[in-house]
Amino acid sequence: MKIIAFQGEHGAYSESAAIEYFGSQIETLPCESFEAVFEAVEHGIAHQGIIPIENSLAGSVHQNYDLLLSHSLHIVGEYHLRIQHCLIGLPGAKIKDLQKVISHPQALAQCRETLKRMGISHIEPVYDTAGAVRLLSHQSDPTVAAIASRRAAEVYNMKILAEGLEDHTANFTRFLILDREPIDPPHFQAKTSIVFTLINRPGALFRALAVFALREIDLAKIESRPMIGRPGEYLFYVDFLGSTANNVVERALENLHEFAPMLRILGCYPSHPLPAP
Amino acid sequence: MKIIAFQGEHGAYSESAAIEYFGSQIETLPCESFEAVFEAVEHGIAHQGIIPIENSLAGSVHQNYDLLLSHSLHIVGEYHLRIQHCLIGLPGAKIKDLQKVISHPQALAQCRETLKRMGISHIEPVYDTAGAVRLLSHQSDPTVAAIASRRAAEVYNMKILAEGLEDHTANFTRFLILDREPIDPPHFQAKTSIVFTLINRPGALFRALAVFALREIDLAKIESRPMIGRPGEYLFYVDFLGSTANNVVERALENLHEFAPMLRILGCYPSHPLPAP
Repeated sequence: MKIIAFQGEHGAYSESAAIEYFGSQIETLPCESFEAVFEAVEHGIAHQGIIPIENSLAGSVHQNYDLLLSHSLHIVGEYHLRIQHCLIGLPGAKIKDLQKVISHPQALAQCRETLKRMGISHIEPVYDTAGAVRLLSHQSDPTVAAIASRRAAEVYNMKILAEGLEDHTANFTRFLILDREPIDPPHFQAKTSIVFTLINRPGALFRALAVFALREIDLAKIESRPMIGRPGEYLFYVDFLGSTANNVVERALENLHEFAPMLRILGCYPSHPLPAP
Repeated sequence: MKIIAFQGEHGAYSESAAIEYFGSQIETLPCESFEAVFEAVEHGIAHQGIIPIENSLAGSVHQNYDLLLSHSLHIVGEYHLRIQHCLIGLPGAKIKDLQKVISHPQALAQCRETLKRMGISHIEPVYDTAGAVRLLSHQSDPTVAAIASRRAAEVYNMKILAEGLEDHTANFTRFLILDREPIDPPHFQAKTSIVFTLINRPGALFRALAVFALREIDLAKIESRPMIGRPGEYLFYVDFLGSTANNVVERALENLHEFAPMLRILGCYPSHPLPAP
């Protein structure tokens, strides 16, 4: 059985993404940190890993880009998970009796308006969303509920009291699948993720993007990030639609390498569409 | 006295940024949410507001970009705050006696390695960093410590047991200063922040950046963000060095407007350099 490493504990959104991506015939391996996910894959403890790379409300997870650069794993897939927060209680719990809601601060913040409308004002932070449900399952207090994924309710045999608690429905997270070895680049609907540096001077990025534009290669993401301690140098994260198996893409990357001091191909993999809000 | 709204409670990193930026002759107004900061400035309850817009480890705060678009405030300044986490205890506390450390999950995660080296394994999440210090001050347990800013220790008259707890020293947050009215665009060292949309087709961004590159206008930040529910449309956040008082910049923006369905100037303000790591 394929073992997939993820950060968090059973019931975490990363685990939901793994199951939606791979199907239920996998074994999921909870890891304490993102770094531990990378290490589990590197050391062969897991076959592949899954990490969040950007959220539609919170932005890119720079820390995971740093880990992609400091390790040598390859991106072999992507998945967009719609984040749908559930209100979860003990089997006998009722919404009208609730006196306290616990969850990760970010999940609580994302449901603030809905909780207010429900008349729930007593909220308490805990370490993560799935951990909140585990806590719940160890107590026998039907006046406490947790906010977490549908999967977390299933893992701990708890009851879903309400669904879609998030204030903004356009809440999704993009996950990357990591492996020790790259896959054969797909010929259709391929996406390629690269990172490169540029010495900042007027027009530097313009010239870098010319290598794609002049070959009609379509960009799906671009983000700059200053390199701390090296004023004037920038890291760029770029995703484009196209396969490294394609000659035109190959020449574009060779061309980019002529003036990017550092260029790394993080992976070429089948692209997965954004979900509807 | 000038009133500055910030998200969090007294002692939050946003408040530290406000005091470093404005000096200590201000009154700071704690707000429950980022939206409440915007509203406090709009309704004249505060003269200005301060919000985090990007962190070097966690990335851009998309939620605050959304609020900049849904409100009509102007960016009038920026400030880069180096995030330095302190270990804070009761006046009589000693590191060797500590049994538990409390803080916001993100701060705890950023100090994970250091805490491990200190032999502290029992950590507990609370709602925010300053709130952890407030909790501490209401108890009389010298075996509990909090992770928060130097400012939080001062606000609650607590003792700093150790400084620089963060695992990565290159940890800083960029803050924006918001006002109801724009300032007169500075003539030197000005930065301008804009948001625009493009219909995605190969080369669309390349053409948009041409308006800057051909006029030798230097970009300081670029980030794309897919518009959820509108496949193929992207929002772009761009900061460039230059003043809207300059004719060349004015023409560049007119030119960009020709093919950007939406273009909004969020503000023109004095640029503040990145701190050293």
